[in-house]
Amino acid sequence: MFWTEIKVRFSETDAQGVAHHAAYLDWLEIARIDYLARFEGGYPGLRAQGVDATTLEAYVKYLAPARFDDRLRISARCGDVRGARFRFDYVLERDGERIAEGWTTHACVNSETLQPTRIPKWLVEAISAAEEENA
Amino acid sequence: MFWTEIKVRFSETDAQGVAHHAAYLDWLEIARIDYLARFEGGYPGLRAQGVDATTLEAYVKYLAPARFDDRLRISARCGDVRGARFRFDYVLERDGERIAEGWTTHACVNSETLQPTRIPKWLVEAISAAEEENA
Amino acid sequence: MFWTEIKVRFSETDAQGVAHHAAYLDWLEIARIDYLARFEGGYPGLRAQGVDATTLEAYVKYLAPARFDDRLRISARCGDVRGARFRFDYVLERDGERIAEGWTTHACVNSETLQPTRIPKWLVEAISAAEEENA
Amino acid sequence: MFWTEIKVRFSETDAQGVAHHAAYLDWLEIARIDYLARFEGGYPGLRAQGVDATTLEAYVKYLAPARFDDRLRISARCGDVRGARFRFDYVLERDGERIAEGWTTHACVNSETLQPTRIPKWLVEAISAAEEENA
Repeated sequence: MFWTEIKVRFSETDAQGVAHHAAYLDWLEIARIDYLARFEGGYPGLRAQGVDATTLEAYVKYLAPARFDDRLRISARCGDVRGARFRFDYVLERDGERIAEGWTTHACVNSETLQPTRIPKWLVEAISAAEEENA
Repeated sequence: MFWTEIKVRFSETDAQGVAHHAAYLDWLEIARIDYLARFEGGYPGLRAQGVDATTLEAYVKYLAPARFDDRLRISARCGDVRGARFRFDYVLERDGERIAEGWTTHACVNSETLQPTRIPKWLVEAISAAEEENA
Repeated sequence: MFWTEIKVRFSETDAQGVAHHAAYLDWLEIARIDYLARFEGGYPGLRAQGVDATTLEAYVKYLAPARFDDRLRISARCGDVRGARFRFDYVLERDGERIAEGWTTHACVNSETLQPTRIPKWLVEAISAAEEENA
Repeated sequence: MFWTEIKVRFSETDAQGVAHHAAYLDWLEIARIDYLARFEGGYPGLRAQGVDATTLEAYVKYLAPARFDDRLRISARCGDVRGARFRFDYVLERDGERIAEGWTTHACVNSETLQPTRIPKWLVEAISAAEEENA
């Protein structure tokens, strides 16, 4: 499965001494962007073509606190690609321990109008090929 | 129902020209803290008593983008209070239009150890009384 | 002098148990925006007219830590308005105690091109009148 | 000179389409932490020894906007190490172009009390040796 790594920043911790729960959404976004970076210019390339993606839903389940300087592996899988919509599933691990999991759903939109638009065919095919490889 | 208001900060917007989706988790937290502020010293008071709350799950459904300087009303309802756990449900509105909704689940923990601990009885009763009033 | 208030968010604290030093720049921005909100549509109005402002420099001096739930008064004064440039000076106080101070410099730019443009005459005059009143 | 790299996150951009000016303080902090990571356990190690560092002042000069997905090189130099205080100077570059510079001053403090404490001798010597190597 595709994965990327982040290191917990000090600015992402809170007064409980652990990573603040909102930081996880930034990390999932980093995983999505790194996931897409493997295809034709990735997310910046999509945006340059006038296609953007908005987040429709986000869900995170926190299993164990992440701490400053922790190195986290975020695995990401993309599925349910149809019409204008797609979904990502994530697992966050620290040294092999699952510390969080989550999913997000998204819609492709026109960069200018933010109105829904079909996911570009090349991207549907690239994602499909990448996910089949992992299956 | 209890509600509080926030105004979208410029620092919360992103390059899509709308509020970044992670900012919503900060806003839900503000609603929780304002909700609890009505009871005996609120969240700071709880923390001073050695009781803290961690987030177990967070879910947001984004219905319409929020923009810079938007004034949002966040309604919050607390339920499922049992043992160490409780749940908040939220609705975010702008001028009466529902732009997002979500829920979070939490566990009471010891401030020092972050181990689960029962919700203080006075808080269970205060929440229960407040929610009955709204029913 | 003009002032506005913020309350330290839990998400703005860090593992030292105090507000993270980067949060102060968000707060200074809130003070600027509230300052400008008194004039013809304020900062959103400026942006609607195709005029934006970029930050050229930012300086903060941290005198005492701010903590979760602290209510801070941010005083702001605008000066050195000339050509495309202007400067804000700030003082942050908690219950009358000065806990930080800072300043920022800015340039007016075209919203589309981000190229420098003269500050609109009505804004120069409005700021000048507001500051004279305080003198 | 010591340097580290960051990539601008989407969550760090704002509605001007560029990186928000407060994000730079997070980046300077990353550079400091990476700088210290070369010495005996680095910043997490310092904290484990009961020594922490607070920020006394921060200054940033913004020369050209940073954009989403930009890869930035942050050079950092530590100097003026004396008593409880030290200073970092930074340069931010994108493909060899200087896009920002800044400095921060800090005080060593006791992790528990946040009261000033002398910088540990081993750290003064390690920094001094590292900086001499670069001279």
